[in-house]
Amino acid sequence: MDLLKKKIQDEGKVLSESVLKVDSFLNHQIDPILMQKIGEEFAARFADAGITKILTIESSGIAPATMTGLVLGVPVIFARKRKSLTLTDHLYSAEVYSFTKKETSEISVSKDFITSDDVVLMMDDFLANGQAALGLLSIAEQAKAKVAGVGIVIEKGFQNGSSQIRERGFNVESLAIIESLADGQVTFKEEVVSR
Amino acid sequence: MDLLKKKIQDEGKVLSESVLKVDSFLNHQIDPILMQKIGEEFAARFADAGITKILTIESSGIAPATMTGLVLGVPVIFARKRKSLTLTDHLYSAEVYSFTKKETSEISVSKDFITSDDVVLMMDDFLANGQAALGLLSIAEQAKAKVAGVGIVIEKGFQNGSSQIRERGFNVESLAIIESLADGQVTFKEEVVSR
Repeated sequence: MDLLKKKIQDEGKVLSESVLKVDSFLNHQIDPILMQKIGEEFAARFADAGITKILTIESSGIAPATMTGLVLGVPVIFARKRKSLTLTDHLYSAEVYSFTKKETSEISVSKDFITSDDVVLMMDDFLANGQAALGLLSIAEQAKAKVAGVGIVIEKGFQNGSSQIRERGFNVESLAIIESLADGQVTFKEEVVSR
Repeated sequence: MDLLKKKIQDEGKVLSESVLKVDSFLNHQIDPILMQKIGEEFAARFADAGITKILTIESSGIAPATMTGLVLGVPVIFARKRKSLTLTDHLYSAEVYSFTKKETSEISVSKDFITSDDVVLMMDDFLANGQAALGLLSIAEQAKAKVAGVGIVIEKGFQNGSSQIRERGFNVESLAIIESLADGQVTFKEEVVSR
């Protein structure tokens, strides 16, 4: 998605060989018009998947997921993140390890909102080691929902999250795939354009 | 806003005389079409305020704020919430006491994204005791930004947040004002329609 890649090149800050900061339009400040375009792009990529629900995680997944939900005409659920769950009653939950924070948190979703009748699109702002996406997939599996795929705004292609998810048979659609952050430069992976 | 009030009557769960659960369309599952209508309504109410930025708090403020930002054509910033800040460098921060959780957290916003040139609309999903909104107002004041007002999706009119903010001279626009949750029933405040 060229508009997104341009935004990353113009405004992203490479903090190290593995850390890209996109606080000016995705993670802290949000560019709503870019989010709308992102929503349209995901909706087009998953147009034939029969999606009934979008599942994301608070907080940075909410804006792109809500815009995608608007275009597809389906509800969005955001999993809640907490250090440890005191109430696990009537919740699906999964443990998510953060390599950045070096801590495990639990994410949870009410059993009211995902059922075995649902076809779920997982979404998140970033895909790196894949821990958050695998947690969302676990929740969908617990609900016996069908998984339509995983939609990612920015994938760190040099980490193994994407391959872990694909190995389990799921379709991953990333709007921008970063091949390298070496020398303070963002290099994108060459894409095989599928449409 | 009649559509919102109908949704609250149809799907809201009154858990006690002070707690209303709206997890099915605002706080956990999000109805993107309702969020779009909410965005249009806030944009209309603040159309002449010259807003340049919207400031909200993660997580439930993000969806309505992003839709409002889309209609107004301005960026949205969500303040981050944490128990205690380790890094306060280059951040505006404020303490927010939660009467529900009985704990104080700190909210913070990067100094990069709000300046003295900005006209800021504060937004949140709920207004009860006003602690979160007062924290956002403190951040805008630290940035020496102009405050256009406060936009609230659901106001608990029987708590004192709204009057605290109005006493300080700020305009509060709430799309649904709840007068009472007594007897398991949602009663809305009669509104003086201003437009």
